[in-house]
Amino acid sequence: MIRAGIIGGSGLTGRELIKILLRHSQATVSYVTSRQYAGKSVAEVFPEFASVTDTEFIDAADKRVLDKSVVDVIFVCLPHTEAMHFVGKAYQKGIRVVDLSADFRIKDVKLYEKVYKEKHKYPELLKRAVYGLPELFRTEISRACIVANPGCYATCTILGAAPALAGLQVESIISDAKSGISGAGIKPTPSSMYISVNENETPYNVGKKHRHQPEIVEALYRGTGKRTDLIFTPQLVPMDRGMLATIYIRLKKAVDLEKVKKVYRERYTAEPFVRLTENISVHNVQNNNFCDIKVEDSGDKKTLLVVSAIDNLLKGASGQAVQNMNIMFGVDEKDGLL
Amino acid sequence: MIRAGIIGGSGLTGRELIKILLRHSQATVSYVTSRQYAGKSVAEVFPEFASVTDTEFIDAADKRVLDKSVVDVIFVCLPHTEAMHFVGKAYQKGIRVVDLSADFRIKDVKLYEKVYKEKHKYPELLKRAVYGLPELFRTEISRACIVANPGCYATCTILGAAPALAGLQVESIISDAKSGISGAGIKPTPSSMYISVNENETPYNVGKKHRHQPEIVEALYRGTGKRTDLIFTPQLVPMDRGMLATIYIRLKKAVDLEKVKKVYRERYTAEPFVRLTENISVHNVQNNNFCDIKVEDSGDKKTLLVVSAIDNLLKGASGQAVQNMNIMFGVDEKDGLL
Amino acid sequence: MIRAGIIGGSGLTGRELIKILLRHSQATVSYVTSRQYAGKSVAEVFPEFASVTDTEFIDAADKRVLDKSVVDVIFVCLPHTEAMHFVGKAYQKGIRVVDLSADFRIKDVKLYEKVYKEKHKYPELLKRAVYGLPELFRTEISRACIVANPGCYATCTILGAAPALAGLQVESIISDAKSGISGAGIKPTPSSMYISVNENETPYNVGKKHRHQPEIVEALYRGTGKRTDLIFTPQLVPMDRGMLATIYIRLKKAVDLEKVKKVYRERYTAEPFVRLTENISVHNVQNNNFCDIKVEDSGDKKTLLVVSAIDNLLKGASGQAVQNMNIMFGVDEKDGLL
Amino acid sequence: MIRAGIIGGSGLTGRELIKILLRHSQATVSYVTSRQYAGKSVAEVFPEFASVTDTEFIDAADKRVLDKSVVDVIFVCLPHTEAMHFVGKAYQKGIRVVDLSADFRIKDVKLYEKVYKEKHKYPELLKRAVYGLPELFRTEISRACIVANPGCYATCTILGAAPALAGLQVESIISDAKSGISGAGIKPTPSSMYISVNENETPYNVGKKHRHQPEIVEALYRGTGKRTDLIFTPQLVPMDRGMLATIYIRLKKAVDLEKVKKVYRERYTAEPFVRLTENISVHNVQNNNFCDIKVEDSGDKKTLLVVSAIDNLLKGASGQAVQNMNIMFGVDEKDGLL
Repeated sequence: MIRAGIIGGSGLTGRELIKILLRHSQATVSYVTSRQYAGKSVAEVFPEFASVTDTEFIDAADKRVLDKSVVDVIFVCLPHTEAMHFVGKAYQKGIRVVDLSADFRIKDVKLYEKVYKEKHKYPELLKRAVYGLPELFRTEISRACIVANPGCYATCTILGAAPALAGLQVESIISDAKSGISGAGIKPTPSSMYISVNENETPYNVGKKHRHQPEIVEALYRGTGKRTDLIFTPQLVPMDRGMLATIYIRLKKAVDLEKVKKVYRERYTAEPFVRLTENISVHNVQNNNFCDIKVEDSGDKKTLLVVSAIDNLLKGASGQAVQNMNIMFGVDEKDGLL
Repeated sequence: MIRAGIIGGSGLTGRELIKILLRHSQATVSYVTSRQYAGKSVAEVFPEFASVTDTEFIDAADKRVLDKSVVDVIFVCLPHTEAMHFVGKAYQKGIRVVDLSADFRIKDVKLYEKVYKEKHKYPELLKRAVYGLPELFRTEISRACIVANPGCYATCTILGAAPALAGLQVESIISDAKSGISGAGIKPTPSSMYISVNENETPYNVGKKHRHQPEIVEALYRGTGKRTDLIFTPQLVPMDRGMLATIYIRLKKAVDLEKVKKVYRERYTAEPFVRLTENISVHNVQNNNFCDIKVEDSGDKKTLLVVSAIDNLLKGASGQAVQNMNIMFGVDEKDGLL
Repeated sequence: MIRAGIIGGSGLTGRELIKILLRHSQATVSYVTSRQYAGKSVAEVFPEFASVTDTEFIDAADKRVLDKSVVDVIFVCLPHTEAMHFVGKAYQKGIRVVDLSADFRIKDVKLYEKVYKEKHKYPELLKRAVYGLPELFRTEISRACIVANPGCYATCTILGAAPALAGLQVESIISDAKSGISGAGIKPTPSSMYISVNENETPYNVGKKHRHQPEIVEALYRGTGKRTDLIFTPQLVPMDRGMLATIYIRLKKAVDLEKVKKVYRERYTAEPFVRLTENISVHNVQNNNFCDIKVEDSGDKKTLLVVSAIDNLLKGASGQAVQNMNIMFGVDEKDGLL
Repeated sequence: MIRAGIIGGSGLTGRELIKILLRHSQATVSYVTSRQYAGKSVAEVFPEFASVTDTEFIDAADKRVLDKSVVDVIFVCLPHTEAMHFVGKAYQKGIRVVDLSADFRIKDVKLYEKVYKEKHKYPELLKRAVYGLPELFRTEISRACIVANPGCYATCTILGAAPALAGLQVESIISDAKSGISGAGIKPTPSSMYISVNENETPYNVGKKHRHQPEIVEALYRGTGKRTDLIFTPQLVPMDRGMLATIYIRLKKAVDLEKVKKVYRERYTAEPFVRLTENISVHNVQNNNFCDIKVEDSGDKKTLLVVSAIDNLLKGASGQAVQNMNIMFGVDEKDGLL
């Protein structure tokens, strides 16, 4: 059994990780930490777990946390700029980590520091960390000590755009991405209130202002060898969970739609969690780990329209984190995720 | 023209008041105060008002606020226990007030202090304040200096129960009331987040624990001369606005349903904002000032089932406040409200 | 392995059954029938199942359907009055059935025929059919050939009321029950449209007019030996799935709340899918098979307030159906359901 | 007073027209027709109008309908391909018409017949009909006998794109438009059910497959003198009403953002119902007739990002229809709409 720890597990990604790991046949939850709730049972904080697990939150300073005889892998659910400190310590202890924060996603330390407005404490580890998108970096993930789990918007856009970027001559990309509000986390803010989200639709941090924009551009480059310009338009729609991106890919020359579909089919045919579909919607990927992709006829031969949908908390966060763990430990990639 | 001021107008009830008064043919907004936004335009805080009004928030300490040559009536939208201080001052200046807080709703000062856990600063004014439910206290409202605008749950339950209590022999009442989340106001809390409210239904402060329970019992007594026991079950449902109560009225002896319907018809036939209906839903009262009431066959001759529905922000707050103003100033009771 | 067939599986209960059985360690789906979709893959109709199962819908007339060498148990998801014909045939073939329709829930054939306005074709089987509420009839279920899976409202109300009815002196019961719209099924109607449900709350078939009312009264009588009067107020709230009932139980004499809580604790302590909780909401039971129950202080010693919550599609339908199957076949009652 | 008739008024646009006209100081509703509800009161079909209006639906064959002594203008809310027959008759009687259907929007009769798969009965009237977008065709509207009220998606996209197309060198346009479900009307379909829309997001008829795509291209050409290619991606989001389009305008050469903003400011400064804003969301335009527009920094100097938002039932349908009526009859363009 893989013994997994969860750091900062009282948020939405922690809750999903617990749910997945309880169904996993080869993994078990060793501990879950929470500064705020240490000493309380998980079921007290998330009552859906009553009669399901009697795990209690412990403090991250507990000595079990970084003890290799207790834990094989640690999922880090701390906020950006805070996570790196813990990841560094785990690395020094030789414990493998899946970091759900952004701290090890961007390799270019200058870029990271510009985007997250914080000096990186472990720039040397950035090179060792692997971007945890199995469809692009499976082999590296299998051997990684630190896996930087991708952002939800990044997962959705990269999976939709990568085959085109790799296989065709792309001029530039627009990703118009709509997300449920759970991506904003569990902390109350004016913009996450029911009266703000319900019956509303709002773009925010558009163009190149959202932190996932440089993450996507860099990961696409590393994954396909091609640089592209990206306009990225994140938007909130009134949903709890789920995300759908309409991706407009401008090509240097006209390409036949059937040829494009073939490129996508070949690229993803062996992937356990990517489905090419003619019927795309958020519903089909809600509460599961799939990324659904539809290649559409844009009506303009020089522009591809690719629609990509995921559950932001699963393939966009905790589901992908467990998929990465499965790859790291050589167990069935789908375990816990179907 | 009636010149109206609004104190603490940057919340949801303030926003509705502004909207109503902009449509009123006999009233005008003299000022709107906000501690937080003084100096900003109303449209900056509520962008829906851009190109509609260029009013700016002023500070409540501004000397115009309590100046009789500037304002004929003041709507007070301050929090409970804070509102009374302002209301007292306005009273001393001889300016009429519609207080949307709970501070002058309960006449029994001991009860008020128990429920709101605060010493009342103006117990002598409690007697002068009139409970602003036009259907029960229209004459008193017309002469009142201080109108205590009822709570939303109280309005919904009292209008549904009063005719039965007044005209039949009632043993006890249960009001099972479902509210949209806007009743909780504009301040972000864990329970007002989209991820908490959406796809959920939760009772809270049930039995006799909600502050509107004693308010309802006392107002029903003053309005009908009859005391009743009340079990009150407030609940949140995933809606922005609107409220519906299913009210179970246990009778001392069996009564024929047609007789009950006649009691309700006679009681409400002349009321401009109460509609007896066979088709009840929150939709029918949303964004208007009506209270819809349906007398149902409970299947048990000793129990009446009365369903009552309002918009919590209109008939349950700002709409009723303007209805009260209209009565106080002798203009058409429906002005601004259709 | 238990080989399970699903009849009429292209609706919401069929979809949930497939999802549960795919996770079940001791059961497998032998076939799913659908008149409309025979020949199509399940994934074509429910795209969420793409890459998860390649089962195809077959026609109910297919000879495998009633073949004991193919199937050990059949879940019947046909409409009321239609289901009985299939159930009768399966019974004659000696195949055990869990019937999710209402056709075998009410034992009193006259009552059934009055409520469902259809002559019952197998009145003699009504006596053999067991009401599939494990908490009241587990032993009978274990031996049953026909299990009549309870209605969602019935499950929610009965589990909330039964311990009081059995252990205390009850005068009458009111159940004020709020349901998500999935209870209305997959067929488009004016009242199931988004524009009808969203931002709305509506009671319907109140008092004794809903078909679950006599079902609840009869099942409570058979389960506790006590008859009670019941006012039942079903309501639609804007949710996909989930249900919460506030149940007012009028007692013949005052009872101490702690004593009541003890009655409930003792009754449910060994039940795998009933949780007594202090924190009740629809969220906690959504997407799981639990019934959460909270005994509340109504403020009136002669009236109990019990709140009961389930997922209408799981504990209220397909989850309970699989729980029943687990009991019938002697496997772990929780298999497939956690 | 302008006497207005409404043909086919039992749908969502009819309901909004009635609501607006009841508030209009210079117009009155002469009649509302409905095949299905003739003889019933409007309040029976739309209970929100109880105690507000006692108008009854009449049949469209009633002789008052086309009687110039009864009515000055007729709003036609019939389905596409059906509306033209009525519009033709009204024209022959010399009664002015605002047609909310698509039948007179497209001038090119061949294009109309290709898109709507129906022979046009009055091709000669196509030339006389004016496209009812006041911001582009106000003068023509003021004199028109037939005003073809634009589609909701068309209004939203054209207002967002027209200033750029007119004032800059545009290469091509992508409009990624998200709509509430009320745009689909009042008739129940699988895709308009609550369980289909809630917690979902789905693109449909993308690229050049939606009927508003050619409408937009043609109207932009007539309004600006410039032809452009358009990829149009309509999407459903879980809202009742409201619409927001993110419009990507590819320029032939880089332009400074401040210059673009100036182009928009100059174009719209005198428009009563277009607001340039820095704070854009569906909420701000819900239940009002404004179109809010934000010019964003896309991060790419050769691509403009313009966000445009309207209420699909108001500025996208009935509000704009009344705005057109106001222009046609020379009354205050804002009457009834604030």
